[in-house]
Amino acid sequence: MHVVVPFAAERPKTRLSDVLSVEERYSFARAMLNDVLDVVRVAGHDPTVLATAPLDEAPTDPGPSSDVDVPVTVDPEPLSSAVNAALVAADEPVAVVMSDLALATPESVRRLTTPPEDVVVAPGRGGGTNALVVRHPDFRVDYHGASYLDHLRVARRVSASVHEVDSFRLATDVDEADDLAEVLLHGSGEACDWLQDAGFALDVSDGRVGVRRD
Amino acid sequence: MHVVVPFAAERPKTRLSDVLSVEERYSFARAMLNDVLDVVRVAGHDPTVLATAPLDEAPTDPGPSSDVDVPVTVDPEPLSSAVNAALVAADEPVAVVMSDLALATPESVRRLTTPPEDVVVAPGRGGGTNALVVRHPDFRVDYHGASYLDHLRVARRVSASVHEVDSFRLATDVDEADDLAEVLLHGSGEACDWLQDAGFALDVSDGRVGVRRD
Repeated sequence: MHVVVPFAAERPKTRLSDVLSVEERYSFARAMLNDVLDVVRVAGHDPTVLATAPLDEAPTDPGPSSDVDVPVTVDPEPLSSAVNAALVAADEPVAVVMSDLALATPESVRRLTTPPEDVVVAPGRGGGTNALVVRHPDFRVDYHGASYLDHLRVARRVSASVHEVDSFRLATDVDEADDLAEVLLHGSGEACDWLQDAGFALDVSDGRVGVRRD
Repeated sequence: MHVVVPFAAERPKTRLSDVLSVEERYSFARAMLNDVLDVVRVAGHDPTVLATAPLDEAPTDPGPSSDVDVPVTVDPEPLSSAVNAALVAADEPVAVVMSDLALATPESVRRLTTPPEDVVVAPGRGGGTNALVVRHPDFRVDYHGASYLDHLRVARRVSASVHEVDSFRLATDVDEADDLAEVLLHGSGEACDWLQDAGFALDVSDGRVGVRRD
C-alpha cells in the first residue's frame, strides 16, 4: 500500500521547544521520521514523504541519517490540503501515517492496513488522527481540531464503512516533553537512541514517570 | 477468567481535584468502576472488586449506581500487597484491571485475556501497568514507579513468557483533567454520561482538545 508520511520540514516539533533547541528538534524529528519510514517498509508498504519544504533545506545538518531514501513530495500547502491532494492524485488505497509516531511497529502498521473497511482510523491522544487508510473516493481529511470526530462524520456523510484501530503505539504522537518518556519506555529505533545520546533518561523521582537530561 | 478490579475507595482520583470536588471524584470514580465491571462481564469474565475500604463507607451517596452487584474484597493494604495477596490466593489465572479505564471495551479486554502467555501486560501512558493477566505462580506485582518496566523484569526473572497488548483504550487511565477529554471522545458508558450530566464538554477553542464545564 502507498503510505504518505507528512513531515513539517521547516518548523518541526515546536511544542518541544522547552526541552530541545531548534536544531535538536529538527534532528529528533528526522530520527522519528526515519523510524516511521522503517516500520512502514518492514510492514511491506511503500512510503512517500510529504514535506512542506525540501528536506535538505533544514536549518542544520541532521547527520548521517539525513538521506531519506524514499520519494519526497514537496507541498507547501497546509497539512489537510496537501494530504487531500495526495488522496485525489491516487488511484489506489492510500494510508496517511504521521511522522512523529516513534512507538509505531510493523505490527501496529499492519493492524492499520489490514482491515478492509473504506476508512480505517487510528485515533491519537487528544482527538487527533494519527494514522488513516482511505479506500473511498469521496473521503477527504481535515486535521484541524478534534479531527478524529470530524473524520468519523465525513465517513458517515460519504457512506464509507469505518474501522477504528485501538493501538497505544499509533495513538502516541510525540509532541511534548512528557511524550519523550513514552519513547524511552517503548521505543526501539533511532528516535530512542537519539534521546539517549542527547542525555535523556527516565525520571521516576517524584513518583510519576518523566524525563530528565544529564 | 477471574478479574480483580482494584478500587481506591477512600480517596479516589485526587489528581482530578482541580476540576472535581471530593464528592464528585467519588461519584465519577464509581461510574468508571461500573463501566469497567460491565465490560469485564460482557467480555465473559467474573470480576471482583478489590477495595481499600467497604464501598458503602463512601463520603456521599453516589446515587442509583451505588450497588455494585459483584463480590467486593476489602483489603486496606497498599495496592501491590493487596494484588499479590489475591495472586497467591488464586489457583487459576488472574487478571488485574484498573478501575479507571473508562475507555475499555469488551474487545480490548478480550485482547488482554486471550493470549496464552504466562504474563500479559497492557501498559498505561507514563509507564504504568493498567491491565495484567498472570498465569505464572511466581510472578508478583509492584505498581510503584514505572511498573511496566518492572513487570517485564519480574517476568524475565521468573522465566515467564510475556505478551504486550497494544491498546489505546487500555493505556488510557483517567487521572487528570486532560484525560476527561478522552472519556468524552471515546467513552460510551456511565462515566461519559456522568461527565456530560456534570456539564463537561469538549473544548477545541485554543486549537487543542480539552474540556470545559458549563
